[in-house]
Amino acid sequence: MNVTRLKTNPLITPDDVTPYHDNHEVIGVFNAGVAEYQGETLLLLRVAERPISDNPDIVNAPIIDFSSGNRNLKIIELNKQDSKYDFSDPRTIRYQENGATAYLTSLSYIRLARSKDGEEFTIDSEPFIYPETKHETWGVEDPRVTLIDDTYYIQYSAASQLGIGVGLITTEDFQTYERHGLMLHPENKDAAIFPEKINGKYYTLHRPVPKGIGSPEIWIAESRDLIHWGNHQHLLGLSEDGWDSGRIGGGAVPFKTEEGWLEVYHAADKNDRYCLGALLLDLNDPSKVLAKTFEPILVPEADYEVNGFFNQVVFTCGVTLQNRNVRVYYGVADTSMAAADMSIDDILAKLTYLKVPEGGAVE
Amino acid sequence: MNVTRLKTNPLITPDDVTPYHDNHEVIGVFNAGVAEYQGETLLLLRVAERPISDNPDIVNAPIIDFSSGNRNLKIIELNKQDSKYDFSDPRTIRYQENGATAYLTSLSYIRLARSKDGEEFTIDSEPFIYPETKHETWGVEDPRVTLIDDTYYIQYSAASQLGIGVGLITTEDFQTYERHGLMLHPENKDAAIFPEKINGKYYTLHRPVPKGIGSPEIWIAESRDLIHWGNHQHLLGLSEDGWDSGRIGGGAVPFKTEEGWLEVYHAADKNDRYCLGALLLDLNDPSKVLAKTFEPILVPEADYEVNGFFNQVVFTCGVTLQNRNVRVYYGVADTSMAAADMSIDDILAKLTYLKVPEGGAVE
Repeated sequence: MNVTRLKTNPLITPDDVTPYHDNHEVIGVFNAGVAEYQGETLLLLRVAERPISDNPDIVNAPIIDFSSGNRNLKIIELNKQDSKYDFSDPRTIRYQENGATAYLTSLSYIRLARSKDGEEFTIDSEPFIYPETKHETWGVEDPRVTLIDDTYYIQYSAASQLGIGVGLITTEDFQTYERHGLMLHPENKDAAIFPEKINGKYYTLHRPVPKGIGSPEIWIAESRDLIHWGNHQHLLGLSEDGWDSGRIGGGAVPFKTEEGWLEVYHAADKNDRYCLGALLLDLNDPSKVLAKTFEPILVPEADYEVNGFFNQVVFTCGVTLQNRNVRVYYGVADTSMAAADMSIDDILAKLTYLKVPEGGAVE
Repeated sequence: MNVTRLKTNPLITPDDVTPYHDNHEVIGVFNAGVAEYQGETLLLLRVAERPISDNPDIVNAPIIDFSSGNRNLKIIELNKQDSKYDFSDPRTIRYQENGATAYLTSLSYIRLARSKDGEEFTIDSEPFIYPETKHETWGVEDPRVTLIDDTYYIQYSAASQLGIGVGLITTEDFQTYERHGLMLHPENKDAAIFPEKINGKYYTLHRPVPKGIGSPEIWIAESRDLIHWGNHQHLLGLSEDGWDSGRIGGGAVPFKTEEGWLEVYHAADKNDRYCLGALLLDLNDPSKVLAKTFEPILVPEADYEVNGFFNQVVFTCGVTLQNRNVRVYYGVADTSMAAADMSIDDILAKLTYLKVPEGGAVE
């Protein structure tokens, strides 16, 4: 299928973003949520900032600390020689003992970028959404934005030592907003709320990560008010091998076509190479998977997708639509933002219909 | 504090229960939900049945199979010599490769026992709640029952290869019931819905088990309709050492006292010894922990608590109240049911008030 990466890719890189924190560097500006507001395309950038370390033996882990009653940015200094920790993953510091995550190496928050043409963006100087609760002490990440009536629902990963859950914020003007706490408890990420009621119910995709039984796969849940969620159902599982055998999760906010709800999602293989695929869900009951792409529709190929802070990643949180064209905005290599154009018809042509729809199969 | 175990303990043992499945044995009748209905005490027993194996080299794993379109009990035969599996835990068969659970060794369903005096029970001959969906192929377990108006809300663990989540069923007569799917996605257990609205909201305790970050600890969520849940908040964490350092979770349905909501919960240490403790939650905002027992209020001591299918377990899903007495019904050693009487005043006296209430501390 035809995938046209924008010539101006990568659209936004860490060099384009002034650090918000003193003595920090921006190491990533990626995995942005996408909204259209007052004629502009808004990117809700995940900006990751890392404390600058002058000592090569020291790794700094930033956390938001509420223990004084106020909000403070606190830097934990860890020595690379400390055998208690595993520093091999650039994103996280793990305990050697059990592989559990002890700290993140950067703090993420959400910052707005605005564009008239969807290609050239101006970046706000201040954060839009910054960690504010005990569930966000390690940062806020990877937002999706769903417009319903005049309200934008922002779903994002809320990370803390208590776990990673899905936070929910609503805004009407991208200046003020209302917090609704965690809409999904840990461990969960990659929620993407559908943009309208379907048969009287709202739906969201989500991606739990169970510990003892089960895998990081795509689930779907229902709501009456978009704040409270229930009737969770498993939607799509991993493959045994290949591009979608490691972890899969919702990507962009789903959009409606005559054939069904189209969802551009992410999948990683067992070596953590992230690609994008597409799913087609039943128009009247999106808990039924009608079709999927058995091959990815976008794979890391361009230099900015292959090389970066974490290599071999394309990861989308949102698209814009114009006639039959889909512009997929996506984070690359956990470093920068890019976009690619593809047609709805090409995506539909790439789908394979399932003989037994997943989801409804074994009820 | 005074804890009076009933002289008739254990109240119900596997020998008291006729297997529902041909060629199966009842290995456990435990972790029962508790309800009061039409002047009787009902126990919603978790009955675990194991396929009888004539061959000592074969371990049988029972699952409910929907692949034919109908519901069938299917027995998977595994050879103890198969190096792919780890058979060391009597409850589960794990993959050697990664420790993930491959199968359970028994299938659980829920069966009713009825009593006029709360001590002598008559057990129904058929299951009350039996696996019916793709999320229950490994069984239904550990129910809690909350009466609100004239409806009993039954929260239980729904187990399958997709993960363990919390199923929700409502009944008014303990004969027919309505299913509401999974109220909480995997991995989650030990939900306990509060029996009334508090400041306009319903609340439930729950216990997620995150994989990458966080521990098996107690959380609380809110609802408007008891079916859909949101605003998940971390409530109480593990201790570093001792009786509550391994995993903690809601136990009985919380009950109201003048001092606050009293919750009898379970905690296991790092050696999987399960005890009961108590929590006091703010009457008007149960996301605030006012006090807790720093020592357990019930520990496995009696022979039937210490020795069984899984040793050293006391685990409650419900209590009954009479004046100032609390009768705690609890599963023992994953084998049988027991009960113990204690006074509300003794539990309250055992509580230590926290200087900074947990939950509200770092918002």
